[in-house]
Amino acid sequence: MSTKKLKMGMIGGGKNAFIGAVHRMAAGIDGHIELCCGALSADPIVAKESGLLLGLPKDRSYGSYQEMILEESKRPAQERMDFVSIVTPNFAHFEPAMMALDHGFHVVLEKPMTLTLEQARLLQEKVEETGLTLCVTYTYSAYPMVKQARQLVKEGRLGPIRKIMVEYPQGWLSKLIENGLSLAFWRTDPEKSGKSGCMGDIGTHAAHLAEYISGLKITKMCADLQTFVDGRKLEDDGNILLRFENGATGVLSASQVAAGEENALKIRVYGEEGGLEWNQQDANTLIVKPVDQPTQLFRAGQPYLSPLAQHNVRLPAGHPEGYIEAFANIYRNFATTLLASMQGKVPTEEETDFPTVTDSVRGMKFLETVLASAASEQKWTDFLR
Amino acid sequence: MSTKKLKMGMIGGGKNAFIGAVHRMAAGIDGHIELCCGALSADPIVAKESGLLLGLPKDRSYGSYQEMILEESKRPAQERMDFVSIVTPNFAHFEPAMMALDHGFHVVLEKPMTLTLEQARLLQEKVEETGLTLCVTYTYSAYPMVKQARQLVKEGRLGPIRKIMVEYPQGWLSKLIENGLSLAFWRTDPEKSGKSGCMGDIGTHAAHLAEYISGLKITKMCADLQTFVDGRKLEDDGNILLRFENGATGVLSASQVAAGEENALKIRVYGEEGGLEWNQQDANTLIVKPVDQPTQLFRAGQPYLSPLAQHNVRLPAGHPEGYIEAFANIYRNFATTLLASMQGKVPTEEETDFPTVTDSVRGMKFLETVLASAASEQKWTDFLR
Amino acid sequence: MSTKKLKMGMIGGGKNAFIGAVHRMAAGIDGHIELCCGALSADPIVAKESGLLLGLPKDRSYGSYQEMILEESKRPAQERMDFVSIVTPNFAHFEPAMMALDHGFHVVLEKPMTLTLEQARLLQEKVEETGLTLCVTYTYSAYPMVKQARQLVKEGRLGPIRKIMVEYPQGWLSKLIENGLSLAFWRTDPEKSGKSGCMGDIGTHAAHLAEYISGLKITKMCADLQTFVDGRKLEDDGNILLRFENGATGVLSASQVAAGEENALKIRVYGEEGGLEWNQQDANTLIVKPVDQPTQLFRAGQPYLSPLAQHNVRLPAGHPEGYIEAFANIYRNFATTLLASMQGKVPTEEETDFPTVTDSVRGMKFLETVLASAASEQKWTDFLR
Amino acid sequence: MSTKKLKMGMIGGGKNAFIGAVHRMAAGIDGHIELCCGALSADPIVAKESGLLLGLPKDRSYGSYQEMILEESKRPAQERMDFVSIVTPNFAHFEPAMMALDHGFHVVLEKPMTLTLEQARLLQEKVEETGLTLCVTYTYSAYPMVKQARQLVKEGRLGPIRKIMVEYPQGWLSKLIENGLSLAFWRTDPEKSGKSGCMGDIGTHAAHLAEYISGLKITKMCADLQTFVDGRKLEDDGNILLRFENGATGVLSASQVAAGEENALKIRVYGEEGGLEWNQQDANTLIVKPVDQPTQLFRAGQPYLSPLAQHNVRLPAGHPEGYIEAFANIYRNFATTLLASMQGKVPTEEETDFPTVTDSVRGMKFLETVLASAASEQKWTDFLR
Repeated sequence: MSTKKLKMGMIGGGKNAFIGAVHRMAAGIDGHIELCCGALSADPIVAKESGLLLGLPKDRSYGSYQEMILEESKRPAQERMDFVSIVTPNFAHFEPAMMALDHGFHVVLEKPMTLTLEQARLLQEKVEETGLTLCVTYTYSAYPMVKQARQLVKEGRLGPIRKIMVEYPQGWLSKLIENGLSLAFWRTDPEKSGKSGCMGDIGTHAAHLAEYISGLKITKMCADLQTFVDGRKLEDDGNILLRFENGATGVLSASQVAAGEENALKIRVYGEEGGLEWNQQDANTLIVKPVDQPTQLFRAGQPYLSPLAQHNVRLPAGHPEGYIEAFANIYRNFATTLLASMQGKVPTEEETDFPTVTDSVRGMKFLETVLASAASEQKWTDFLR
Repeated sequence: MSTKKLKMGMIGGGKNAFIGAVHRMAAGIDGHIELCCGALSADPIVAKESGLLLGLPKDRSYGSYQEMILEESKRPAQERMDFVSIVTPNFAHFEPAMMALDHGFHVVLEKPMTLTLEQARLLQEKVEETGLTLCVTYTYSAYPMVKQARQLVKEGRLGPIRKIMVEYPQGWLSKLIENGLSLAFWRTDPEKSGKSGCMGDIGTHAAHLAEYISGLKITKMCADLQTFVDGRKLEDDGNILLRFENGATGVLSASQVAAGEENALKIRVYGEEGGLEWNQQDANTLIVKPVDQPTQLFRAGQPYLSPLAQHNVRLPAGHPEGYIEAFANIYRNFATTLLASMQGKVPTEEETDFPTVTDSVRGMKFLETVLASAASEQKWTDFLR
Repeated sequence: MSTKKLKMGMIGGGKNAFIGAVHRMAAGIDGHIELCCGALSADPIVAKESGLLLGLPKDRSYGSYQEMILEESKRPAQERMDFVSIVTPNFAHFEPAMMALDHGFHVVLEKPMTLTLEQARLLQEKVEETGLTLCVTYTYSAYPMVKQARQLVKEGRLGPIRKIMVEYPQGWLSKLIENGLSLAFWRTDPEKSGKSGCMGDIGTHAAHLAEYISGLKITKMCADLQTFVDGRKLEDDGNILLRFENGATGVLSASQVAAGEENALKIRVYGEEGGLEWNQQDANTLIVKPVDQPTQLFRAGQPYLSPLAQHNVRLPAGHPEGYIEAFANIYRNFATTLLASMQGKVPTEEETDFPTVTDSVRGMKFLETVLASAASEQKWTDFLR
Repeated sequence: MSTKKLKMGMIGGGKNAFIGAVHRMAAGIDGHIELCCGALSADPIVAKESGLLLGLPKDRSYGSYQEMILEESKRPAQERMDFVSIVTPNFAHFEPAMMALDHGFHVVLEKPMTLTLEQARLLQEKVEETGLTLCVTYTYSAYPMVKQARQLVKEGRLGPIRKIMVEYPQGWLSKLIENGLSLAFWRTDPEKSGKSGCMGDIGTHAAHLAEYISGLKITKMCADLQTFVDGRKLEDDGNILLRFENGATGVLSASQVAAGEENALKIRVYGEEGGLEWNQQDANTLIVKPVDQPTQLFRAGQPYLSPLAQHNVRLPAGHPEGYIEAFANIYRNFATTLLASMQGKVPTEEETDFPTVTDSVRGMKFLETVLASAASEQKWTDFLR
């Protein structure tokens, strides 16, 4: 608890926008952040209306992100926004992020980071140049039991890792619904979403999760992408063989046409001494399978968890926390890290554990490698450096 | 979304208080409520410090609830708090609630409502007299899949109800921990908690859930209470045979010494045509078992749910919502109902679906009946009228 | 493996009889027993036809159990049957069992043992007098993970036991189907089934399981029985509060109108140091919940199980064994115990672990107590001595 | 039920042999087959001892399979064995199978069929030439809920199939245990097991299951095999990208070093209208996921199942059947098909649904293709014709 709150300006996320509302709930839940201004739509009229509906002051309901960044820069330091949260479709990430950094504002960004790796690298350079923080919302790595999984691997509880199976089946794009549903519309349009569909939208989450938990980098892959629904412009399914830096093998499978599935992200990691399993839809349980002993169910909120996991839990065991809380963990860690810096303190290791520009650039490289491998007739394609 | 926010004053919930923080997260998540003032501790110094830590203005961090209610009453209508949220231990519910109602403020109250049924009845009279709203946080009935369960029963999908099994096993009081843990301390002290322990703390939730889902009232019961831990002052376990108004039978079992359990509230309802099952720890699934057909898994966020369930969901299927979100449903429905009234509108049926003074008085009667039955050598004791 | 096989004569279980076929599969699976003769129906013609269909020699397909027992008695010792397996409806248990014992044959009997406690006591006296073995098929206690549960309790892994929750919901009698289905017909007819319906058919299993796992005897109870289906002659549902010899509390709930349930026998036992849970429908898993540690999943076929559990498993972990195998464990232990005796050896502790006349008489007392309690207006009724 | 039983001669499966005992339990459970003779070990002395232990007549406990086949051929038709069941390690499949066919005996064979595809083809030709039946124990396809899955796909309930995910993780070879455990020893020795380890032992099951349920043939693949354990001679892990004849994609992953896993064969099939999922370790449930409707749990023993599934069930719903029963389904269908033929009847469609020489030759081609693909640097390798 702290009196000082971080001030957030939001770009995108106006009326009827889904993910913007999630960002606001996530940013608001822990009391470290307050929404102080917004440029909530590309349409200035909608943007201003949306601001009023959210209770923003009239003069801080901006008609465009450019206006917001410029006007906020002019305010006294104590008053102006501290960071922007960019919740627009992928194609509208790069310019506002760059402009915000250029004007001294930290950035929270949705993934995938940009339309192209080139843009991602430019942002990375800008971040390094300015010393500002760019946070990317790889939400799934922020669940407490994912933190616990990472910790168990790090401590060697599974022994050297041999095999990683990560899958992300969804079924919501089983039919051609993109014309009726804005959520689906831009995600399946290469101009708005980038060169990959399913892999950009959810495959990147799976790849980040695998590397985050295992602490291992993917070194090469063999990708098979498909577009199953007639008339769709981007791939809606893909299976990828993986190899990791220590020789571990793996499979990443993602689909948006796995009919009947909801959001069934799941990962299994096997080492010489045991395995672990985590399912996003049963997020508060981590299944640990030591060789020759009973399988164990680690549960969120229990006192036996690691400090890293404990830090990302709000409630006692048996009181389920979900997606919004995981999302909020990213915002909270981002905020407490920045607040500590502002107050000349050193943030804790637990606080600084959130995905940054490094993760998001790596996500872009993952996508480039996937596309290259999918286009190749060779079995293996090296992960882009 | 609406510009007007409801202003909340909080009583209790200062530094290190657990449930107060949950109330603030729940009240804050949906953007309809803002914390404007607080009397956050019985100790005036702690109260004021806690207020500052939460970022409250100095002049609205009050040293006592009496001061807060009096001072807020003097503020202009547009500025003063709209309601108080009382998150103190049970013994400190009655007076602040009564005083708040007397001064024209709506009230949100934790359960059980008061120490005695007499106090509960006095509050009920005051509510009726003033026309104000008293909301009680029977959190579990606010989960979307519980709403769906109620709806299915109401529509007759299970046929006439025959049997209701509700259980609430916890294990956190398996040992005598009350001296070291404030949470446990007051809950096991009759002066602070009331005449019942386990039944007051969690049995009431189970009873409310059974009546809420089934739409049936308990008419008689046969209770067997136990205090298993040496040195404990209130019962920590109980099993109750139930009979409902339509002749349905049932069992309510609650325990705080069910070692190894977390917060495993579970209900099953059986009718002539099928059964249903809901587990709080897997809150986003409702299991429906029609006779002679495959069992069905209804899931939160799915378009096929009833409007009542849909109204209480924020995210698409597969993005788990948890305890805080259920809690938030009560605050949101309470808030939007009040905001509608303030604006001269009629709130929707979905908005008015939150537990009120009627539910909380019934909860007190349940506890009185349990204690009477436990003390009786007769098999059946009628539910107190 | 042993050359000597035990010779079984079957009473009942002819064409279209369900449970007789289960007994034959169970008796045959492990190679210790061979069916040598039968009186497979009360109708001599059907009896003989059934014998031929099973490949029995014509002269050992008897027309009545009386004939079988008499004729087999006259055969040379090496050739004649060693025991009878009685798989008739309840009302036809007593006479053949008594006659078999009188003629020196061991007996395997279905539960409940007899129509009345008086008959049960007569059989018990006869068993004691003759030194023969009467085995009763409380099948559920023969699952390997139930053995493991018993062992864990015995070793004190849960600490002193406080609470036992056992439930047996079925839904197959949700409608009045007795006129069309012979299985349902005799089970709901007091003349054929005895004075209790649901409790006799499945409640006795639940009671036996609770006492078997916990090693504790029920000392008193408070029963509430119901007949939900119009026109049914025996109760089809019941809930019972339990007290055990050490002061532990409990609930036994059984139903045959729990619509949508299959055969969902489940038990939970809680002690001071942890709890355990076993579900018959997921029979190969035992859930163990030590206080303050991760929940553990013990699995059939794993090397870490106790010798008692291991003895009752045939396959490596992950190769599910089911109901027939559990049933077969009783037959195998019965057979190897008898074979050891015949060969002058002492059977192992694991081999002698099967339910005998003591268990079946206790089952009859349980039923008498349930009926007395259900008829009483007093809360508690002592378990019949 | 039928008086005529099929007579089985067993090759291999003597003292301490695991799978032989399973075959005998499976063959014996339903009463259609009796073991009449055996050549139970490669060691004549052990072979004869084992025969006596099983209660075989001395003159039919043979010292070698050659002796058994020759001697049985000389017996009168009514008396001699009808078929041989070959339960030796892979390298000892071909010769006895060929000799049995040459002498007019039907054959039941373990998978994989032979050491080489060439041998497999020779057996196939012999089967075609003689008109005898060769049955191969792809056990997992004999579970009732797998039959139901096949039926649902066939009826189009999932729409055209798009994606098939099949996995078979085991952990028992996580360490180098082959020197201490005979089960592990021959399975990891190329001379006894063939050119593939994990894929031959369990990958073939997965491939058969995928094709059996979907009704689709694999047309090409991209395989990545690994030997993780130092000193092991054959691969113990593999991941394979699949393409099916209709354009469906898929992944087959098998491992014997998935530490902590038991025998977790699992398949998911997704079509345009829904998905399905089956887990061998929860074999009695089939999860069906229709688009935009609640997920359904189909359960073994329920009256709503297809005749094909019903045919392979012995017990009412909720009485679990397991691995031995699945195994027994193959033996029973094989036996009733042969018995029908012997009696001049036409076996039903349900009876003839067991895996034959066609399936086992295809299994050998699968293995050859896997090895070719694993050795190739090209992404795709066509399935061997």
